[in-house]
Amino acid sequence: MNFASDTAAPAHPAILQALADANAGSASSYGGDAWTGRAREALSRVFECDLDIWLVSSGTAANALALATLCPPHGAVICHEEAHIERDERGAPEFFTGGAKLSLLPGLHGRIDLGALARRLAANQPDFVHETPAHVLSLSNLTECGAAYRPFEIAERAGMAAKADLAVHLDGARFANALISTGATPAEMSWRAGVDVMSFGATKNGALGCEAILLFGPARQRLADLRARAKRGGHMPPKMRYLAAQMCGYLKDGLWLQLASKANASALELSRVLVGKGGELAHPVDGNEVFVRLPDGMADRLSAAGASFYPWMDGSHRFVCSWATTPEDITALADILR
Amino acid sequence: MNFASDTAAPAHPAILQALADANAGSASSYGGDAWTGRAREALSRVFECDLDIWLVSSGTAANALALATLCPPHGAVICHEEAHIERDERGAPEFFTGGAKLSLLPGLHGRIDLGALARRLAANQPDFVHETPAHVLSLSNLTECGAAYRPFEIAERAGMAAKADLAVHLDGARFANALISTGATPAEMSWRAGVDVMSFGATKNGALGCEAILLFGPARQRLADLRARAKRGGHMPPKMRYLAAQMCGYLKDGLWLQLASKANASALELSRVLVGKGGELAHPVDGNEVFVRLPDGMADRLSAAGASFYPWMDGSHRFVCSWATTPEDITALADILR
Amino acid sequence: MNFASDTAAPAHPAILQALADANAGSASSYGGDAWTGRAREALSRVFECDLDIWLVSSGTAANALALATLCPPHGAVICHEEAHIERDERGAPEFFTGGAKLSLLPGLHGRIDLGALARRLAANQPDFVHETPAHVLSLSNLTECGAAYRPFEIAERAGMAAKADLAVHLDGARFANALISTGATPAEMSWRAGVDVMSFGATKNGALGCEAILLFGPARQRLADLRARAKRGGHMPPKMRYLAAQMCGYLKDGLWLQLASKANASALELSRVLVGKGGELAHPVDGNEVFVRLPDGMADRLSAAGASFYPWMDGSHRFVCSWATTPEDITALADILR
Amino acid sequence: MNFASDTAAPAHPAILQALADANAGSASSYGGDAWTGRAREALSRVFECDLDIWLVSSGTAANALALATLCPPHGAVICHEEAHIERDERGAPEFFTGGAKLSLLPGLHGRIDLGALARRLAANQPDFVHETPAHVLSLSNLTECGAAYRPFEIAERAGMAAKADLAVHLDGARFANALISTGATPAEMSWRAGVDVMSFGATKNGALGCEAILLFGPARQRLADLRARAKRGGHMPPKMRYLAAQMCGYLKDGLWLQLASKANASALELSRVLVGKGGELAHPVDGNEVFVRLPDGMADRLSAAGASFYPWMDGSHRFVCSWATTPEDITALADILR
Repeated sequence: MNFASDTAAPAHPAILQALADANAGSASSYGGDAWTGRAREALSRVFECDLDIWLVSSGTAANALALATLCPPHGAVICHEEAHIERDERGAPEFFTGGAKLSLLPGLHGRIDLGALARRLAANQPDFVHETPAHVLSLSNLTECGAAYRPFEIAERAGMAAKADLAVHLDGARFANALISTGATPAEMSWRAGVDVMSFGATKNGALGCEAILLFGPARQRLADLRARAKRGGHMPPKMRYLAAQMCGYLKDGLWLQLASKANASALELSRVLVGKGGELAHPVDGNEVFVRLPDGMADRLSAAGASFYPWMDGSHRFVCSWATTPEDITALADILR
Repeated sequence: MNFASDTAAPAHPAILQALADANAGSASSYGGDAWTGRAREALSRVFECDLDIWLVSSGTAANALALATLCPPHGAVICHEEAHIERDERGAPEFFTGGAKLSLLPGLHGRIDLGALARRLAANQPDFVHETPAHVLSLSNLTECGAAYRPFEIAERAGMAAKADLAVHLDGARFANALISTGATPAEMSWRAGVDVMSFGATKNGALGCEAILLFGPARQRLADLRARAKRGGHMPPKMRYLAAQMCGYLKDGLWLQLASKANASALELSRVLVGKGGELAHPVDGNEVFVRLPDGMADRLSAAGASFYPWMDGSHRFVCSWATTPEDITALADILR
Repeated sequence: MNFASDTAAPAHPAILQALADANAGSASSYGGDAWTGRAREALSRVFECDLDIWLVSSGTAANALALATLCPPHGAVICHEEAHIERDERGAPEFFTGGAKLSLLPGLHGRIDLGALARRLAANQPDFVHETPAHVLSLSNLTECGAAYRPFEIAERAGMAAKADLAVHLDGARFANALISTGATPAEMSWRAGVDVMSFGATKNGALGCEAILLFGPARQRLADLRARAKRGGHMPPKMRYLAAQMCGYLKDGLWLQLASKANASALELSRVLVGKGGELAHPVDGNEVFVRLPDGMADRLSAAGASFYPWMDGSHRFVCSWATTPEDITALADILR
Repeated sequence: MNFASDTAAPAHPAILQALADANAGSASSYGGDAWTGRAREALSRVFECDLDIWLVSSGTAANALALATLCPPHGAVICHEEAHIERDERGAPEFFTGGAKLSLLPGLHGRIDLGALARRLAANQPDFVHETPAHVLSLSNLTECGAAYRPFEIAERAGMAAKADLAVHLDGARFANALISTGATPAEMSWRAGVDVMSFGATKNGALGCEAILLFGPARQRLADLRARAKRGGHMPPKMRYLAAQMCGYLKDGLWLQLASKANASALELSRVLVGKGGELAHPVDGNEVFVRLPDGMADRLSAAGASFYPWMDGSHRFVCSWATTPEDITALADILR
């Protein structure tokens, strides 16, 4: 009954197999191998456009490198006040950008409030040397509260940002889960909605450790800069094929969407159980995470019986399902509460 | 006939198997898993001491993080003028330290010259605010020229550094190869010789992508700082077990030494072939690399026949063997020259 | 009628004279001169303790260097959400620290709210690697809203910070003004209240351009680090005597307190005029700044008549007096409103 | 008999007077004042072109800010191995660029060797991600050895750099001295010779503390970036008029060239004295510095008699004259040797 995190789950066997399949013969180092090329082609097909990619082994690396290619050291990145880049990455964006600032906005369920965004952008003064002007808007989908933006919601925020000359980054650590619940295509949820650069996650959804930074449209001109930053960040592993093989396996035959679908379904089922026992949802269950306010004593009871999950800062508790969550896991949890 | 790099080789099946074996059930994220604990224990046994570790996926990350824990932004790191940290890491040490300098010394075969080191240390003025004083000595074993330091050679340089209040870092990307050719134990070649922090490589010697930063003795007090830097560097992958499993598989039953032994033997055999055809060794073959000055036309002949290897900046060519190099590879190369 | 800023005022003649007096003969560079020694002695007398100092030419430099000596790149600095270091220094703290974060707290009149501080400190987890723990509390006196902390208010915040193992920084760009209105001594308002490092401003109160970073007590051990950071920040001007002479002239015979007293008195008088004409004070007038909500049309009328002042983000307008503000300036402004 | 440094000299009275003249009435802060405008106009006339400027209080700040506007964090700056930016600025270029590297070249008398430069540029591989490619060539005139480049020597090096897509920076801390000995105009020695950005020094030649960063031609597009970096570097002093007034006074009626001419003449006279007593010039006396190998015992004799000067790392001794050096100073030194 491990609902602590989707990163506690193992890798999906098909992805491990893809890794094993890549383990044959010699291959050029540093991304010059065939698998890296195939990963790019596969991502291009999935996103229905030409694009450039860089593969890294952690979401923090993906986000921070993406932001550093878009934001000068004397600029700022607008994000939600509960965004992962603000709360959980130990200052990685500040480190990789060379000291840029994060500019925090509120919003329900981790979605940046439109009015707050409008006010922040209206107050942005790129030529006023004393303040730090925003150069980037970073959105997360799923949000840090497990909610999904629909494509038009991405598009309206990205559109406002573009009008103010900001670039748009999307943290898609749980992008697959957001696609499933919204029914959107990858293209609709990214470049067609105005996203310039995104972090496309696979680790939380079945990979061993693989995230892709995707550069769309004009942002592709930043590839050389991105590669140089990745290299000096230690994010150019010599045997790149093992990252690429994971991405290939992840995307093959729609595995990634099947896994997300399964995880989302588990979360819905789990939320039903918890709500049925008096829990109250703190946020919509748009993906594989359930944030729920538990009746008195329930958290202790669950913990004592061996279930793992996290208290959240807003007083709720976070339960995360993954591709590996089984009906039995949920039944076992339900049994505790009987 | 891929002699371009040991990073072109695949992973050893036993290491891939260790990865597969770790792929069962849920596990705590970020290093809280059982495999990470076992990796530390295994390294502790191999090095015959208590130690702290951090696992990363590239040698550049290992070196840069290690140096950043030892050197303030306004300090310098002494290294060989051909060291990997100077020539091949795109300024990673400068990035992770926040702008420290590398202070370059000459020396035959990539070994730092003793006299040059003595003069540099004598000129070090930690209290003279205008110059950048050295805080760290970084040695590489194997050196960037494929030569090995013997333990007493490490010890005499480390001893000089310690007397001048410098910490000592060892870049051990090819540490196993150096142990094989010198017959030294891991402990003799590291902390017993005065090394404070080392980068212990597995990637070039059979892993998919895994390097350990090892903290010895008083340097273990830097663990919290190292972890924070790793986190913000994107080098705390959530599913850490897949790095740890590689390290466990690498060390198990002495596999790592067997693989290095095989690679070294291949290099020796290859060097005999090349010398037999008129090549002249530019550096001693102390590990798995052969640097050889080729007779006119030979490089073109080999390339045309499909052998891959690199021209080196000193006019020689570098041929690298790995655990996966076969006698047939070497015979095939010899056949070209017949 | 320039009420735009106290930095629009010229230097006081006595301080210019001190500069001229220092302009004789040769003097050691980089702080080895007699005037720098005298500045330290004068500050030591004024603050009634041994201390170490560093002189710089801007408040931003003073604050950023001070913070960088106290906070690691992976740490955070707690400050008020309207603090100068957050709003007006273009990311200088982030730059000098190597990417530390500012952690923002609310509070009336620019004073950090005690409850908010208590909650922030209670939530501080130095050992939780994902979050960025606070290492420093930075207070401003005067605050950015022109209010003063009294010594016990500094002390209670500093005490809470110290209990949580944070260092305490004080931004004293308008320190003299705060002393005048509270009647506190320099010592009571700084090290006796728990301040470790402070930025002691002279520029806004009559100097040409001079601020001192003061290190108290155990923080004096950071002097070598501070000097190295200052040097590499370009803040070790060779002819340091011209900074030091300003500080000597500033402190001589209590000039600094007389100037602040005059500026404060002008601000009080100005506030009476504006309130008398229907203005409403947004913040207490504890120093030389008046924040006032103006009746409709009054701002335009004043501007049209040639008065300069700034609209503030809270809807009020800021009027700043300096040592050079004359009764005639205030009368002239009053005359516009007649 | 202070020959230790030209920064040991006081400011010229006319420059102090310019400062005093600027000390009247209120003035816009942060460079919005009339004096800053006049300084730009004066520099424009002197350099016979439109240009943009930024004023700072130290040469280290000027150099580091200039380099940071031209070189990305993952790039390198080519300079002489004895350049001030390498040896005497405590890593300021690394700090301001965010970790760029300095790439060192040899050359007689501090002038970068043409052949070495050609080889370095030929080896520059901007697209090879592992190495750090050079983005900037930084020259110094006077060189760190007191020698001058003539305009064609600047031009040939700058031309080579431009062909390789590098920008060109000139450290002109002693630019006036170089103009005097070569007879070149400011324009000939800077933008007409291919310089994009220069540090134009006044401090060593009579100012209290003032250096200008000059942006020529296309580099003027970097002004906004430069201003932002200056601000966050603490190099936007609020009362900018006091920097600007120094620059105005320095340039007025050719004062700067008169002062340099006087300093150069003193150095020539001093060199005659020292050579007449058996000293041997280590470098040409092209400006206000004399590097001389002294006969045994002479350095001790001079020191004992109260003369101050510095031992240089090449075994010679450096004697620096300034605008304030008098014939009596030189006679007094000669008398010691009688």
